[in-house]
Amino acid sequence: MEELTKKVVEFTRERDWDQFHSPENLAKSISIEAGELLECFQWNNEYDLDEVKEELADVINYCILLADKLGVDPKQIVLDKMEKTAKKYPVDKSKGKSTKYNKL
Amino acid sequence: MEELTKKVVEFTRERDWDQFHSPENLAKSISIEAGELLECFQWNNEYDLDEVKEELADVINYCILLADKLGVDPKQIVLDKMEKTAKKYPVDKSKGKSTKYNKL
Amino acid sequence: MEELTKKVVEFTRERDWDQFHSPENLAKSISIEAGELLECFQWNNEYDLDEVKEELADVINYCILLADKLGVDPKQIVLDKMEKTAKKYPVDKSKGKSTKYNKL
Amino acid sequence: MEELTKKVVEFTRERDWDQFHSPENLAKSISIEAGELLECFQWNNEYDLDEVKEELADVINYCILLADKLGVDPKQIVLDKMEKTAKKYPVDKSKGKSTKYNKL
Repeated sequence: MEELTKKVVEFTRERDWDQFHSPENLAKSISIEAGELLECFQWNNEYDLDEVKEELADVINYCILLADKLGVDPKQIVLDKMEKTAKKYPVDKSKGKSTKYNKL
Repeated sequence: MEELTKKVVEFTRERDWDQFHSPENLAKSISIEAGELLECFQWNNEYDLDEVKEELADVINYCILLADKLGVDPKQIVLDKMEKTAKKYPVDKSKGKSTKYNKL
Repeated sequence: MEELTKKVVEFTRERDWDQFHSPENLAKSISIEAGELLECFQWNNEYDLDEVKEELADVINYCILLADKLGVDPKQIVLDKMEKTAKKYPVDKSKGKSTKYNKL
Repeated sequence: MEELTKKVVEFTRERDWDQFHSPENLAKSISIEAGELLECFQWNNEYDLDEVKEELADVINYCILLADKLGVDPKQIVLDKMEKTAKKYPVDKSKGKSTKYNKL
């Protein structure tokens, strides 16, 4: 992950794009790319794997840049959140259900 | 990254949630969580770091699940996309500009 | 509004696109187009008015189709929601503040 | 539509919220609310009609505010865009197909 972050950040630095990458702009970018990813599934499930891979890569790319900009470790925040989610969704109550925690 | 994927997938498996995680549903989930992340920046730049970390973690979490579901390596698809993007945005033409490639 | 709805629905009917317009697919389409609208503001505020108009039109178009599909009047649901929002954000408590109701 | 716009704008003015409603912030708000609308369909098609109506109302509400801010007529921009879309998707080529115009 660190290695990937280094490459992604380097790509940005080479192009002097850091000036555009405020946390807010990166959050917008993640939403924009998430929309393009969703477009692969707009009308049905017959998605084009190559397109999905590219759009997913764009989302992850901006997630890495935002984590770097905030000075947080992507892996650590996911683990921290999983711990919180585990409390909201204990295995015995949530097993096999897609119900939101406030309706469980 | 592999270690993180293992934990994220295990979390899902324990709750028998895999049945809900079609690629399409995961793409929707990424968009939904990206919207919640964007909400941290809705009216201004004074974001709450803890909230941003949690929402970003949710986006990354679903990205990992989608990559796993598609059988692709998150790191590899980002590297592959960077190679493609490098061609669209050569350093000498794109340096210091936020212009989209089709208007460069 | 009714007149606009008629034209939008007619456009779809002529193309036999109603079969793709499940409420879920229309909700996805609204998100996708909202992302394209947001892209007009990705890196700065210097937006292209013509592009913004087109992307905003796409969002409204799918909103009209979804309202029609659900059998609800777009105007009425906005008025109903405003009444609810007015209770969450009474003028005296919310005036001049962008604070979310649960933190007011 | 004009009547609805008047009420929506009045609601905002009473609360002195116009200061937060830059075109960019309204575009973000449309994306955020579109995400909440999509959440009604996250895992399956069994949506709650009341929730969908409220979230759709939120999207339309911000669309009206953005159109007003830009000084454009929501109805007119939809009609203008339909004319453009009709050229991209002529009835005889697009009938019964969800194919994107660049692949038709």
